[in-house]
Amino acid sequence: MAKRTSLKGAACPIARSMEAIGDCWSMLIIRDAMLGKRRFGEFQKSLGVAKNILAVRLRTLVEDGILTLAQSADGGAYQDYVLTDKGRAVFPIMVALREWAEDYAFTPGDETNILVDRETGQRVGRLELHAADGRLLGYGDTAIKPAIA
Amino acid sequence: MAKRTSLKGAACPIARSMEAIGDCWSMLIIRDAMLGKRRFGEFQKSLGVAKNILAVRLRTLVEDGILTLAQSADGGAYQDYVLTDKGRAVFPIMVALREWAEDYAFTPGDETNILVDRETGQRVGRLELHAADGRLLGYGDTAIKPAIA
Repeated sequence: MAKRTSLKGAACPIARSMEAIGDCWSMLIIRDAMLGKRRFGEFQKSLGVAKNILAVRLRTLVEDGILTLAQSADGGAYQDYVLTDKGRAVFPIMVALREWAEDYAFTPGDETNILVDRETGQRVGRLELHAADGRLLGYGDTAIKPAIA
Repeated sequence: MAKRTSLKGAACPIARSMEAIGDCWSMLIIRDAMLGKRRFGEFQKSLGVAKNILAVRLRTLVEDGILTLAQSADGGAYQDYVLTDKGRAVFPIMVALREWAEDYAFTPGDETNILVDRETGQRVGRLELHAADGRLLGYGDTAIKPAIA
């Protein structure tokens, strides 16, 4: 990514999110962590990314409080990377990314995996945004308003 | 972003999304387009990004079918950048990014703007993911299953 001013203090929530996770590798590392990967080598094998790039991304994710270092699950000398609450809270973003790709980046029959309810094995519904009165809101139904401090 | 293998044909929907929009500038351009910006100069002023970087990102977003070129709204010689259906469909991703930042990248009182229902001006609810039977699903309640072709 090109060098630029940090967006960490930006007024816009989208900018702050993208500053923390708006990087292709970072998001795919979080995805892999959600799928149970914990080891440097597991991420490396899954992503096929250069070790130095992966090391930097993992360090940044730890610094940003999205991953934390934990004692290796098998009691070995290496430390594992585990999602924090902040990292697990990326889940709805992942679901939204998945839905968009399912709709626009796959052709029929090309789909390789689906998101299911762990309890029933049935496909999950679509993400929904509702108004206070319960109406379903879509693009064009919302606006941005200054927050009252 | 570092050079790497294209993720366009990746099996994972998250990978395909990130390939198309997992870039800080691209997502912020889409955000600005959702807020009504249409002109190169408007994006440039909003993002403070170098013109050559902005030009490349806009061209890629047009190539990916997220933005399209339209006759300038004021009938001038310049063309405007307008969201396509595919671009407008990024809306839930934006909402998910906003929620995450509101929860983890702002401190109380630091919040600068909120997302409201355009009709009532009231703050919108949280994004919800439901199972087929209506249960609310969160992190850990879902699994990935191979798609049956």
